[in-house]
Amino acid sequence: MNFSLSDAIPVLKHTPHVLHLLLHDLPDQWVDNNEGDNTWSPYDIVGHLIHGEKTDWIVRTKIILEQKDTPFASFDRFAQFEASKGKDLSQLLDEFRELRKKNLDTLESMNLTKADLEKTGMHPELGEVTLKQLLATWVVHDLGHIRQVARVMAKQYKHEVGPWAQYLSVVHE
Amino acid sequence: MNFSLSDAIPVLKHTPHVLHLLLHDLPDQWVDNNEGDNTWSPYDIVGHLIHGEKTDWIVRTKIILEQKDTPFASFDRFAQFEASKGKDLSQLLDEFRELRKKNLDTLESMNLTKADLEKTGMHPELGEVTLKQLLATWVVHDLGHIRQVARVMAKQYKHEVGPWAQYLSVVHE
Repeated sequence: MNFSLSDAIPVLKHTPHVLHLLLHDLPDQWVDNNEGDNTWSPYDIVGHLIHGEKTDWIVRTKIILEQKDTPFASFDRFAQFEASKGKDLSQLLDEFRELRKKNLDTLESMNLTKADLEKTGMHPELGEVTLKQLLATWVVHDLGHIRQVARVMAKQYKHEVGPWAQYLSVVHE
Repeated sequence: MNFSLSDAIPVLKHTPHVLHLLLHDLPDQWVDNNEGDNTWSPYDIVGHLIHGEKTDWIVRTKIILEQKDTPFASFDRFAQFEASKGKDLSQLLDEFRELRKKNLDTLESMNLTKADLEKTGMHPELGEVTLKQLLATWVVHDLGHIRQVARVMAKQYKHEVGPWAQYLSVVHE
């Protein structure tokens, strides 16, 4: 598929609702357990997505559109461990939904043209990137974390499935 | 986590709604594209889940509870290619939701005891399995296919993300 705003926006709109549906009204272990040392729980992942809404996607879009020469700030992949403190999952899901809505409203109000999508910014590690690549990455980043939440949950029953484990590739990833 | 019905049932309840939220109102390519030859699209995956509701989980649960000596019938992993013909995605999602609801109503009406969960059946390839393992597999199977749908969708933008691909493990799986 080639990137288009009209393909990307509906996927970005769905993500907070998908995570809400996947994680609401569950016993805590599904939400708080992870895959082992230095891995993330579904709770951590929602916090990470919130941090992206605040500091990454739309912030970088604006930097590209303003054609400033400054590279993007590095994205802090561990910010959620501090930022989520004291909040429960349903507060995080609400916060993510509101931030995503606001950011997509901003994105749509920009009325981006094909020429805008080819504009470039400077990533601190990757070098020159286009706005189109940034927005495609936003979509893939969402989907990657949905798949991660499902995988982390699946692994909680790794031993409970007994001999079926050999058919269930998700518990071996 | 140890298996318990009260942990498993809410996850099983969520799955049709998660898939609906993930896949509704999307351009066709998100739903119909797969990962290459002999791989499944999100459309195919929903059909596969329907087939499981019709022929696998509750059917096998009943065989175990009746303590019959017959092994389970093999599960046809390709039945959806015939069974889904002529149906659009929203019909499949509705069908899956209704079948899942009916099957969970049946499961809850069984009032399974701890002793029931230890009862065994004969899998045609895996040999002796317990009811507890079957029901844990139902949960993991759901989560594995949610993660598969998200991964298949993410890969559609594999080339569109440009240099970010190196940070996005989901497009390399």
